[in-house]
Amino acid sequence: MPLVRIDTSTADPARLRAVGDAVHQSLIAAFGIPADDMFQVLHAADAGLVRYDPRYLGVSRDDNVVFVQVTLRRGRTDRQKRAFYAELARRATDIDLEPRNLVVTLVENDLVDWSFGNGVAQYLDTPPTRS
Amino acid sequence: MPLVRIDTSTADPARLRAVGDAVHQSLIAAFGIPADDMFQVLHAADAGLVRYDPRYLGVSRDDNVVFVQVTLRRGRTDRQKRAFYAELARRATDIDLEPRNLVVTLVENDLVDWSFGNGVAQYLDTPPTRS
Amino acid sequence: MPLVRIDTSTADPARLRAVGDAVHQSLIAAFGIPADDMFQVLHAADAGLVRYDPRYLGVSRDDNVVFVQVTLRRGRTDRQKRAFYAELARRATDIDLEPRNLVVTLVENDLVDWSFGNGVAQYLDTPPTRS
Repeated sequence: MPLVRIDTSTADPARLRAVGDAVHQSLIAAFGIPADDMFQVLHAADAGLVRYDPRYLGVSRDDNVVFVQVTLRRGRTDRQKRAFYAELARRATDIDLEPRNLVVTLVENDLVDWSFGNGVAQYLDTPPTRS
Repeated sequence: MPLVRIDTSTADPARLRAVGDAVHQSLIAAFGIPADDMFQVLHAADAGLVRYDPRYLGVSRDDNVVFVQVTLRRGRTDRQKRAFYAELARRATDIDLEPRNLVVTLVENDLVDWSFGNGVAQYLDTPPTRS
Repeated sequence: MPLVRIDTSTADPARLRAVGDAVHQSLIAAFGIPADDMFQVLHAADAGLVRYDPRYLGVSRDDNVVFVQVTLRRGRTDRQKRAFYAELARRATDIDLEPRNLVVTLVENDLVDWSFGNGVAQYLDTPPTRS
């Protein structure tokens, strides 16, 4: 169910997909989503159109910054969210994305706010079992 | 008031607008929004940058998948939301978009969270009458 | 913390950045965010892919319309939000963006829903002091 939007300045689709994979694996690890629950919009922004402060909160960022925005259903705990950020930072390192360049935002909605095709609200009829 | 984001892999603006029209007509039918309450960002993604699982929840999807994200004010009932998904599936069929390829997400906010120009919060001053 | 998405039909990155600056200065003025709390995705849409009604709620719009979507943490008052819209309208005028062409949407989340790098939830550990 999470819908993931990734915005970063790169011309390399393979790079974008690698970032997407890291996010997806982290969602599985921290939130227990099913492995096949993957929906992502990857966006290769032109240079200068992903704008960031290079030092906000004492974290140094550069033009490799990656914005990750995840829309997900309400109910994950603070602990799970912290685990997601930590896991993503670990997996980012594996693909040479420095954790200092990650900016992550979560937005929550409810079970009824998802339809996965065929005109029905699948999560209302069959709530997902894992949180 | 809904703000609609549509992301799909197509190079055809006319196709994107047809999808946008189907979404808009469905919002009118299911939520009773005024016909002139239309605000949409249509996004023709490069191939491979709208990522989806081809079988999540038993629904078969392919590269014609369309992500529809609607930001709307809080207050629509589960029944209305179900009606929106169903109506969109019906209208999609009319434009040869298979309902199995629709992935819809809703995000809610409040009346104060909208400004339709001129620096004012129109919905606070004059709440919309229909739900 | 606000994450700002700006969508408008322009081929001019400098124009997009000027709009982004106006939004950022308005967020500072109305919400008291720190000056270095800037994160924006600017999107130059192809013609016809930012769709709008030219008269909804009696406001006249044209193809210079700008959609501003701000994700921010919960807690700003109605008064602050009204001040944001008003401030943005004023600053838009300074860059020859007519206030009638602004469509602004806010989406709220919580302190735990932000990570500004390094795999941690900075706002949980050190809540921001100003609202």
